[in-house]
Amino acid sequence: MNQPILAPSVRGPVDHDIRDQIVAAANEHFSQYGYGKTTVSDLAKAIGFSKAYIYKFFDSKQAIGEAICKNCLAQIVAAVEKAINVDGISPTERFRRLVKTLVTTGADLFFNDRKLYDIAAFAASERWSSTEVYNAQIKDFVLQIIREGRELGEFERRTPLDETVDSIHLALRPFVNPLLLQYNLDLIEDAPTLTSNLILRSLMP
Amino acid sequence: MNQPILAPSVRGPVDHDIRDQIVAAANEHFSQYGYGKTTVSDLAKAIGFSKAYIYKFFDSKQAIGEAICKNCLAQIVAAVEKAINVDGISPTERFRRLVKTLVTTGADLFFNDRKLYDIAAFAASERWSSTEVYNAQIKDFVLQIIREGRELGEFERRTPLDETVDSIHLALRPFVNPLLLQYNLDLIEDAPTLTSNLILRSLMP
Repeated sequence: MNQPILAPSVRGPVDHDIRDQIVAAANEHFSQYGYGKTTVSDLAKAIGFSKAYIYKFFDSKQAIGEAICKNCLAQIVAAVEKAINVDGISPTERFRRLVKTLVTTGADLFFNDRKLYDIAAFAASERWSSTEVYNAQIKDFVLQIIREGRELGEFERRTPLDETVDSIHLALRPFVNPLLLQYNLDLIEDAPTLTSNLILRSLMP
Repeated sequence: MNQPILAPSVRGPVDHDIRDQIVAAANEHFSQYGYGKTTVSDLAKAIGFSKAYIYKFFDSKQAIGEAICKNCLAQIVAAVEKAINVDGISPTERFRRLVKTLVTTGADLFFNDRKLYDIAAFAASERWSSTEVYNAQIKDFVLQIIREGRELGEFERRTPLDETVDSIHLALRPFVNPLLLQYNLDLIEDAPTLTSNLILRSLMP
């Protein structure tokens, strides 16, 4: 509605850059002052844009938070992908890497940068689409590993595939979900191995 | 320090009754107005005792909260005990009952009475001794069931007993810990069965 009618073709790439700029600046600002306490006005002042200008690109503070959250979760997914998509490792090893990477990357991202944590918390508690996408991606990693393990005869095949995947995803939730991870930080040392072992025992043929 | 020097023998039972009275009244008051927002002065006013009198029995608001929390958790433990200590059921069935009772009683107690939830949240986040005792009791139930199952040949014996118990207790945490349970309320329908099944598969000989 606010876009210049005469130059629609310019909108794409330029807007994309400005969006990125706002997200980066907001990320920086939230890291320092926290997401919950910052208003769009504060943000506009800090970035040096007008509030109205920011509202051209984002409907709300939440929309900016969503974009930051999406970036964060994409980093976790990328780290997991890199850790598990290695040739010549067994499904068992792939699964262990999945769990370990989820925990360490998640903890690093959210808790070394504690001020960003409340964005993740908002995101998880309000079921932002970014966290739903993230959950689906993690579940898909689990599905791929279980499928491969079943095909290779490394994992049991009696349990319906969807039950196996659902129950594993559920068991991993304390590490996948940033809201739950905060209560598990003191367990980060031992929990991934204990949980991986338990799940792998449940997969034995 | 405040007790009458000449009548120490009276202190026990009478003080006990008054403590119970304060806990019951505080429970009622917190249920209505919340734990976080209530001060000891508010409480004193509501109960009709002086603040100084309450402080004779409890060092702080937290001490009153602890007493309420202890009662709550004792109710969960009692419900679990009743559900699992039934003659003639298998360790597998005992385990299913443990999980189901933990979830349903926990959810009932803490979430039908949402205002009391913040006490439980404080308790779990600050590791009050009542929650530590509760955790130890739940872990002991798990230990007993696993031992029985191993003796009867129903569960595998390759994994060290303490690892089995630790990993199961960890897998149950989202349902045992009230702080985590709040994020799992929408899963209460299916999660207990899925989690029980996964754990029981991991226990297969």
